Amino acid sequence: MSAERIAVGVDFGGTRIKLGLVSERGVVRHRALRPTPRTEGALAVFAAIVDGVEELVKDAGFLLKDVAGVGLGTPGPISPEGDRVLFATNIPGWEGFPLKSRMEERLGRPVFLENDANAAALGEYWVGAGRDVRTLIFLGLGTGVGGGLVLDGRPWRGAHRAGAELGHITLRPEGGDPCGCGNRGCLETLAAAPAIVRAAGRALEQGGAPKLREILRESGPAAEPRPELVARAARMGDADAARVYADAGRWLGIGVALYINVFDPEMVIIGGGVAGAFDLLLPVVTEEVRRRSFAAIHQQVSIVPAQLGDDAGVVGAVSPFFVDSFGEMK
Amino acid sequence: MSAERIAVGVDFGGTRIKLGLVSERGVVRHRALRPTPRTEGALAVFAAIVDGVEELVKDAGFLLKDVAGVGLGTPGPISPEGDRVLFATNIPGWEGFPLKSRMEERLGRPVFLENDANAAALGEYWVGAGRDVRTLIFLGLGTGVGGGLVLDGRPWRGAHRAGAELGHITLRPEGGDPCGCGNRGCLETLAAAPAIVRAAGRALEQGGAPKLREILRESGPAAEPRPELVARAARMGDADAARVYADAGRWLGIGVALYINVFDPEMVIIGGGVAGAFDLLLPVVTEEVRRRSFAAIHQQVSIVPAQLGDDAGVVGAVSPFFVDSFGEMK
Repeated sequence: MSAERIAVGVDFGGTRIKLGLVSERGVVRHRALRPTPRTEGALAVFAAIVDGVEELVKDAGFLLKDVAGVGLGTPGPISPEGDRVLFATNIPGWEGFPLKSRMEERLGRPVFLENDANAAALGEYWVGAGRDVRTLIFLGLGTGVGGGLVLDGRPWRGAHRAGAELGHITLRPEGGDPCGCGNRGCLETLAAAPAIVRAAGRALEQGGAPKLREILRESGPAAEPRPELVARAARMGDADAARVYADAGRWLGIGVALYINVFDPEMVIIGGGVAGAFDLLLPVVTEEVRRRSFAAIHQQVSIVPAQLGDDAGVVGAVSPFFVDSFGEMK
Repeated sequence: MSAERIAVGVDFGGTRIKLGLVSERGVVRHRALRPTPRTEGALAVFAAIVDGVEELVKDAGFLLKDVAGVGLGTPGPISPEGDRVLFATNIPGWEGFPLKSRMEERLGRPVFLENDANAAALGEYWVGAGRDVRTLIFLGLGTGVGGGLVLDGRPWRGAHRAGAELGHITLRPEGGDPCGCGNRGCLETLAAAPAIVRAAGRALEQGGAPKLREILRESGPAAEPRPELVARAARMGDADAARVYADAGRWLGIGVALYINVFDPEMVIIGGGVAGAFDLLLPVVTEEVRRRSFAAIHQQVSIVPAQLGDDAGVVGAVSPFFVDSFGEMK
């Protein structure tokens, strides 16, 4: 047994529960993955999380008492008291479920709840792309656009812990598409995976995107133009597929420019699944940033891809057990 | 002589230098006003500021040594070292002028430089509309749109002290007007005084805005449709003048909604000259906020007018001498 301290990080979403046994240095020692029994309601989801934690610890050869605590990253804003999820649209009964106290009772260890995008931002800040800076903006592009802020070494979660909803800023007030949040024209409607799938689908319908069509044919009859397939086609020279990423990147760039002027950060980190196409996004993002933010600010900002990939949330979720708000070892 | 400590606040802009002798409780004891000799260059402006400080202190019956320090709010971002203005477009030679050291040499007192909108935000936080909250967003609507942020009791100035440029966010990426910053479609082009003057001018040209026309006729031959005159006409029932404010308020509301989602503040304070028409702006701002930000967040945010008016900058500029970053007396 090593003498290093360990904690369990959980990154929980609508489809999967990712678990990791993470060291005090931010290294993931063991991993596990479970489906989220979303349709079975809050109690089933709760059971899947705690069972997952117990199994992971056991499989790694530890006891629960060896663990400093459990950090849980979850979609939706956390209550100001840090004890429950304020709202989560896609799990019946999850809203207001007393997650922290119930987990602590069941596991006998301290539990820390965090919004999933904030957790990923903290992971990147602690041991990822942002480990050498003190002020960063994290944008996670997946099914939606999540965001996290670290300002001078402190996570900014809002006065009521509901802030950093960085995907929900109106970039297209005139003629924007409806967003899950009730608004229209949010960044999330313009630069997340569904926007890419939709735009690629339109290109296919219009008889374009020949390389993408080829890739989809090879992938089987019901293959969807998923972002990674669109990116592959773009890299193979498919001009329509490239345009899909250029459009998404342009909106992302408008958002990044806005955040650069507002926050004056050291770094903007692009994470999430869509960021696998960082090479396709960066040129247009940079162009919009040059056009739309102050040179004296953006010249000092680096725009970089996330480094921890799928681990960011799991790692960031345990960070409160091992580092203080300034990133110093506790 | 009172035993209370005092400092001099200077709020310096393209046309006027406002000076105030401010008490440790944030009360302005004496005021002075001078024109900014802008076209005469940086040295003349510098001389006007230091002469103004000396004269104010003398007129109030004090000596420079009685003063805790001089706080100067100035347009443009401050250097990361806090010693000079990084860029200021409308005073030749002002950029990079070693303001802090030159003022300290001349006056023999400590000098603190602050961006003018940040200073106003700090003033409102200290003794104005925000005195009972810890997290606020300040938007100053005047010739431009200035912004200031206080997050959990700390002013957020950016990693390089160039942040909180809250007027320079792209709200109209498609077809927006050019902005002084080089971008198009910034909030500043849509909700500051020039946008109101322009829109009112268009209404007049098209034969509309009858009450405003009347007011202008009474005001003399060369009268401009200044925001306060447009507001007066709107309050007298001029539908075109009301529409000018409703349009500006709608864009302001889109910006406020965005900032509410990003920061989750306790309070949004609207200041600056245009905020004299807060009654005309609030209904549309509120409507956009309801439509475009999360209910769980905006239900906890108050949107209020600034309380210190023209004094906010002068008061906020001296606050570093008397209160720590948490608003506690030093």
